[in-house]
Amino acid sequence: MSSIYDKTDPALLKVAIVGASGYSGEELCALLDRHPSAEVRAVFSRQYAGKSLGEVMPRFTGLKIAELLFTEADPANVAECDAGVVFLALPHGVAAEYATTALRAGKVVIDLSADFRLRDPEVYADYYGGEHPASDLLKQAIYAIPELSREAIKSSPLIACAGCYPTSIQLPLIPLLKAGLLDPRGIVASSASGVSGAGKKAAVDYLYAECNENMRAYGLPRHRHLSEIEQQLSHAAGENVAITFIPHLAPMNRGIHSTIVATPAVGKSAADLKAALLAAYAGEPFVRIREQPPETKHVIGTNFCDIALYEEPRSGRVVILSVIDNLVKGAAGQAVQCFNIRAGLPETEGLI
Amino acid sequence: MSSIYDKTDPALLKVAIVGASGYSGEELCALLDRHPSAEVRAVFSRQYAGKSLGEVMPRFTGLKIAELLFTEADPANVAECDAGVVFLALPHGVAAEYATTALRAGKVVIDLSADFRLRDPEVYADYYGGEHPASDLLKQAIYAIPELSREAIKSSPLIACAGCYPTSIQLPLIPLLKAGLLDPRGIVASSASGVSGAGKKAAVDYLYAECNENMRAYGLPRHRHLSEIEQQLSHAAGENVAITFIPHLAPMNRGIHSTIVATPAVGKSAADLKAALLAAYAGEPFVRIREQPPETKHVIGTNFCDIALYEEPRSGRVVILSVIDNLVKGAAGQAVQCFNIRAGLPETEGLI
Amino acid sequence: MSSIYDKTDPALLKVAIVGASGYSGEELCALLDRHPSAEVRAVFSRQYAGKSLGEVMPRFTGLKIAELLFTEADPANVAECDAGVVFLALPHGVAAEYATTALRAGKVVIDLSADFRLRDPEVYADYYGGEHPASDLLKQAIYAIPELSREAIKSSPLIACAGCYPTSIQLPLIPLLKAGLLDPRGIVASSASGVSGAGKKAAVDYLYAECNENMRAYGLPRHRHLSEIEQQLSHAAGENVAITFIPHLAPMNRGIHSTIVATPAVGKSAADLKAALLAAYAGEPFVRIREQPPETKHVIGTNFCDIALYEEPRSGRVVILSVIDNLVKGAAGQAVQCFNIRAGLPETEGLI
Amino acid sequence: MSSIYDKTDPALLKVAIVGASGYSGEELCALLDRHPSAEVRAVFSRQYAGKSLGEVMPRFTGLKIAELLFTEADPANVAECDAGVVFLALPHGVAAEYATTALRAGKVVIDLSADFRLRDPEVYADYYGGEHPASDLLKQAIYAIPELSREAIKSSPLIACAGCYPTSIQLPLIPLLKAGLLDPRGIVASSASGVSGAGKKAAVDYLYAECNENMRAYGLPRHRHLSEIEQQLSHAAGENVAITFIPHLAPMNRGIHSTIVATPAVGKSAADLKAALLAAYAGEPFVRIREQPPETKHVIGTNFCDIALYEEPRSGRVVILSVIDNLVKGAAGQAVQCFNIRAGLPETEGLI
Repeated sequence: MSSIYDKTDPALLKVAIVGASGYSGEELCALLDRHPSAEVRAVFSRQYAGKSLGEVMPRFTGLKIAELLFTEADPANVAECDAGVVFLALPHGVAAEYATTALRAGKVVIDLSADFRLRDPEVYADYYGGEHPASDLLKQAIYAIPELSREAIKSSPLIACAGCYPTSIQLPLIPLLKAGLLDPRGIVASSASGVSGAGKKAAVDYLYAECNENMRAYGLPRHRHLSEIEQQLSHAAGENVAITFIPHLAPMNRGIHSTIVATPAVGKSAADLKAALLAAYAGEPFVRIREQPPETKHVIGTNFCDIALYEEPRSGRVVILSVIDNLVKGAAGQAVQCFNIRAGLPETEGLI
Repeated sequence: MSSIYDKTDPALLKVAIVGASGYSGEELCALLDRHPSAEVRAVFSRQYAGKSLGEVMPRFTGLKIAELLFTEADPANVAECDAGVVFLALPHGVAAEYATTALRAGKVVIDLSADFRLRDPEVYADYYGGEHPASDLLKQAIYAIPELSREAIKSSPLIACAGCYPTSIQLPLIPLLKAGLLDPRGIVASSASGVSGAGKKAAVDYLYAECNENMRAYGLPRHRHLSEIEQQLSHAAGENVAITFIPHLAPMNRGIHSTIVATPAVGKSAADLKAALLAAYAGEPFVRIREQPPETKHVIGTNFCDIALYEEPRSGRVVILSVIDNLVKGAAGQAVQCFNIRAGLPETEGLI
Repeated sequence: MSSIYDKTDPALLKVAIVGASGYSGEELCALLDRHPSAEVRAVFSRQYAGKSLGEVMPRFTGLKIAELLFTEADPANVAECDAGVVFLALPHGVAAEYATTALRAGKVVIDLSADFRLRDPEVYADYYGGEHPASDLLKQAIYAIPELSREAIKSSPLIACAGCYPTSIQLPLIPLLKAGLLDPRGIVASSASGVSGAGKKAAVDYLYAECNENMRAYGLPRHRHLSEIEQQLSHAAGENVAITFIPHLAPMNRGIHSTIVATPAVGKSAADLKAALLAAYAGEPFVRIREQPPETKHVIGTNFCDIALYEEPRSGRVVILSVIDNLVKGAAGQAVQCFNIRAGLPETEGLI
Repeated sequence: MSSIYDKTDPALLKVAIVGASGYSGEELCALLDRHPSAEVRAVFSRQYAGKSLGEVMPRFTGLKIAELLFTEADPANVAECDAGVVFLALPHGVAAEYATTALRAGKVVIDLSADFRLRDPEVYADYYGGEHPASDLLKQAIYAIPELSREAIKSSPLIACAGCYPTSIQLPLIPLLKAGLLDPRGIVASSASGVSGAGKKAAVDYLYAECNENMRAYGLPRHRHLSEIEQQLSHAAGENVAITFIPHLAPMNRGIHSTIVATPAVGKSAADLKAALLAAYAGEPFVRIREQPPETKHVIGTNFCDIALYEEPRSGRVVILSVIDNLVKGAAGQAVQCFNIRAGLPETEGLI
C-alpha cells in the first residue's frame, strides 16, 4: 500500500537553522516547530550561543523548539551537526561561507539570502558590491520559486529561495512571458512592503515613530532585487527584459503588495492573459487567482500568493495585482515549501 | 504706505462652512479657526443642527470655533447667512444645490466636492452616475490647484478644488506636459492613500481591524478621480491623455503617495525634466522639489506637496514621486489657499 | 496498547459553527480547519446563507473549510445538522435560542457569547438589559476557562466560554484568591484591547481613522464583563469581590493587556504569590509565568496567556501583568480547548 | 493704551534650541517657527554642526527655521549666542552642563530634561544613577507645570519642565490633593504612551515591527518619572505620597493616556472632586474637564490636557482619565507655555 511518504528521504527530515533570530529565521522556527515531519536538530547564532531559543525569542516558550540551545554559528559547527538539511537565514555575503562547508559535508542547503540567486557573479558584484563570496557554487544553485522550478528543486543540493518582492512579481509574470502573451517591454512594478522586510536591525529609519503614519519609496533607481527579477523574467521571455521597479515602505509589519502594469503581446487580450494565469495555477495549492483586488491581510501568516488581473480598456494595458506575506511566501514559507519538495514530502505539509 | 492686505476684499473674510463634520470639514474648521484674517460666521449641518461645534467635535473644545452652533444645512439658510464665502465640504451630488443658491445670493463658493471639477457634464455622468445636478454652473467654475490656475482663482465665483489624488499627480505632471517635455502616452500613476480619504462613513470596509495591517488596490479599472486627472492633463498636453491610475488604501490615517512612471519626450532627458520642475516651482511656497524620496510624514498636517524625480537609465523613463496630506493640500488646505487668493490675502496666510 | 485518542468520543468530532462571519467566528473557522480531529460539517449564517464560506471570507480560499456552503441560521436547522458539537459565535441575547434547540437535539453546545456565563439571571438583566432569554438552562451551563474548570467541562452539555477581558484577569487572580494569598478588596484592573474586540460591525467609532493613533477608555463605570469577573472572583475568594475595572481601546487589531494592582493577604509576600502562580500553572500548556513584562505580540495568534508579577516594595502591593490574544485564548482558541477536553482529545490538539 | 505685550521682556524673545533633532526638539522647532513673537536665533547640535536645520529635518524645508545652520553644541557656544532664552531638549545628565554655562551668561534656561526636576540630589542619584551633575543649581530651579506653578515661572532663571507622564498625572491629582479631597494613600496610575516617548534612538526594542501590534508594560517597578510625581504629589498633599505607577508602550506615535484610581477623602464624594477640578481649571486655556472619556486623538498636536472623572459606586473610588500629547503638553508645548509666561507674553501665544 502506498503512502504519501513513500518518496520521503528520512535523512533530510533532520534540519538545522542558521540565523534563527532575525524575522525570517523566527518565522522559519515557527513553521518548522509545527511541521509534522521535520525535526529541528540545531539552531546556530553568533550573538546568542549558549542561550535557549525560548530565552531569546519569548514567543516560543512552551513549544518544543524553545528548548534548543543556540550553538555558536561557526561554519565548521554547522557542517558537523547531524542535520541533513541546513536552512540559512542570514544576510547576503554571510550565507555563502556556511553554504560552502555545509555542501562539502554532504548537506542540502536551503538559502534564504541573495547569495546564490544570481547566475552571473558580475551582476552580483554590480548589485551587491564586492566579489561574489563563492562563485564556484553558482552552477549548483537552483533559483527557487517552487511553482516555477519544482523539478529542479527535487534534486538540488543548493536551493536559493527567491526574494520577497521577486516572488510577488514573478509568480504573475513568468507564465505570461513564457507563453508569449506579454510584451516584455515597458513593464512597471510598484510594490509596497511591510517594515519587517527591512530586517531586525537597530536603525533610526525603521523606528516605529519614523515608519508609522508614513509611506515612502526607497532603493531608487536600482533596488537589489531588480537583478534577480530581470534575470528570471529575461529567462522566461527568451530576451532581455528591463523593468521599472519601485519598492515602497508601508506602515505595516508584514505583507507585500505589488502592482504591475504591462501590455499584452500583439493580438492578445486581457482575457487571454487571465485564462493563462488560471491554467498555469489551476493545480497549485499556494497561488489563488482572484476576481477582486487581493488584500495583504488575506495572505498574512500564510504561504499563499493572491493574484488578480484587470483590463484597462482605454490604454490597452493590464493591471496585475499580487500579494504575499513577505516572511512566509516571500521567505520562510517558500523555504519550507522547497524543503517539502526536496525531502519528498507532500508540498503543503506544515504550511496549510 | 502699502500693506500686505491692500488687495484684501473685507467682504470675503466672513466665511461659512457647510458639511463641517466630515474629515475634510473638520480640517477646514481647524485651519479657519487659526486663520488670522478669516472669520467663521456659520457652520451648517443636517445631522447636528442646534448643537455646538465643540460638542460634535470634542477636539475643538476651547477654541473660538467650538462656540458656533450648527445651523440646519438648508440651501436657503446658507444663502441667507452673512458670509461672503461659503466652503462646501459635502459629498458629490449634494454640493451642487448649495452652490446654486449661494452663488445666486452673491457669495463666492469654494467647493471641495467633485461637482464642478469636470467641464463636460457627460463625463460627470459617466464617472459619477446620473445627470449633472447643475450643469449650467460648469462654465463659471474654475478647476483649482492654485499653483496651476492662480490667476483664474482671483476672480472666480465658483472655485472647484481639485481632488486629493489629482493634486498629487497634476502638480508634477502639468508643468512637464505644458512644456512638451513628457511623452503624454503611457503614463502610469500608482497611488496610496490613508484611510481618511474614504470619509467618515460607517462601513465594514473601513473598520480599523479591516484596514490595519492591510494594503489593497481599489476602484479599478476606473476610479472617479481619473476623469479630472485626464481632463487636466489633456488640457496641459494639448492632446488627449489617457493614463493608467491605480489607487490603493494604505494603513495610515492621512497622506497620499503617488508613484508616477513616464517617458521624457524625444530628445529630452531626466535632467531637463528636473530642471523644469525646479523652475516651475521656484517661487512656490507649497511645492518642494526633493533630492531624496519624499515621505508622507514630512507633509502631514501641512499644505506642502513634495516631489522628487529619478532617472531610470535602463528603460529611459523617469520615476516621479509626489506626496501630500490628503486632507490639507488634497482638500482643506488647498481650499484655504484658494480662499487666500480669492480674498486678496497673502497666499500662505494661516497655512504656514 | 493505549492511544492518546482512547478517551475520544467520535460523535463529538463532527462540529458546526453558527455565526462564522464575525471575528471570533472567523478565527474559529481557521482553528477548526486545521484541527487534526475535528470535522466541520456545517456553518450557519443569516446573512450569507447559500454562499460558500470561501466566497464570504476570501482568506480561506483553497482550504477545505472554504468549500462549505452557509446554511440559513435557523435554530431548527442547527438542531437538525449532523454535528455532535455546535459552536455559537453569536452576539449575546441571540445565542440562547440556538443553544436551547441544539441541547434539546442532544448536541453539546460551546457558546462564545455572554448568554450562559452568569448564574444569576438578575445579574444578566442588570448588565445586559432585558430578561435572560433562557434562564432555565443556566443550571446546566459551565463557566469555562479550562485551566480553572477542567473537570466540569469534561461532561457538560453547555459550555459557556469566558469573555476576553475576564480570561486575562481571572487566570492570574483566581489561584491567588482560592489560596487566600490575595486581599480580595481594592483590586484594580486596567485593560487594553485591540479593536477586533469590538466586533465586525459598521460603526463610526471603530473606523480606522477614528481608532488609529488613538487611545481611550470606554464602558465606564460598569463594563458588561465586570459581571462575570466579579461572579468568578467572588466564588474563588469565598466572599463578595468588587473590583475596579477600566477597559481601553488600543490601536491594534488583536491582543488584550491587563494590568492588575492588588494587595497580598496579611503576612503574604509577592514571592509567595509568584510561587503560587508558578505552582498553579506548572503543568499547564497554555499559561506561561514570565520574568519579563509580557507583550501581546508574544501571544498573538496563539492560545497562550502570559503572566508576570512584580512586587512594589514602597506600597506593599503587587502589579500583575497578563496578556492574551482576544480572539484566541479570549474566544475561539479557548472554545477549541474546551472542545478538545469535552471530546476527550489531547487538550492542545490544533492549538500548538 | 495698554497692549497684550505691555509686560513682554524683549530680550527674552530671542531664543536658542540645544538638541533640536530629537522628537521633543523637532516639536519645539515647529512651535517656535510659527510663534508670533519668538525668534529662533540659533540651533545647536553635536551630530549636525554645519548643516542646515532643513537638511537634517526635511519636514521644515521652506519654513524660516529651516535656513538656520546647526552650531556645534559646545556649552561655551551656547553661552555666547545672542539669545535670551535657551531651550534644552537633551537627555538627562547632559542638560546640566549647558544650563550651568547658560545661566552664568545671564540667560534664562528652559530645560525639557529631568536634570532639574528633583529637589533632592539623592533622589536623583537613586533614580537616574550617579551623582547629580549640578546640584548647586537645584535651588534656583522651578518645577514647571504652568497651571500649577505659574507665579514661580514668571521670574525663574531655570525652568525645569515636568515630564510627560508626570504632567498627565499631576494635572488632575494636585488640585484634589491640595484641597484635601483625595486620600493620598493607595493611588494607582496606569499610563500608556506613544513610541515617540522613547526618543529617536536606534534600538531594536523600538523598531516598527517590534512595537506595532503590540502592547507592553515597562520600567517596573520604578520608572524614573515616579520620582518627580511623588515629589510633587507629596508637596501638594503635605505628606509623603507613594503611588503605584505602571507605564506602558502603545502602538501609536504620540499621546499619553493615564488611568488613575483613587479614593476620595473621608466624607467627600466624586461630585465634590469633579466640582473641584472644574473650579481649579475654569479659567485655564489648556485644561479641559470632560463628560466623556477623553481620547488621545483629541489632544494630538495640541497643548491641551483633557480630564474626566468617574465615580465607581461599588468601591467608593473614583477613576480619573487624563490625556495629553507627550511631545506637546508633555514636552515642547509646555516649554513654550513656560516661555510665554516667562517672557511676559500671552500664555497661549503660538499654542492655539
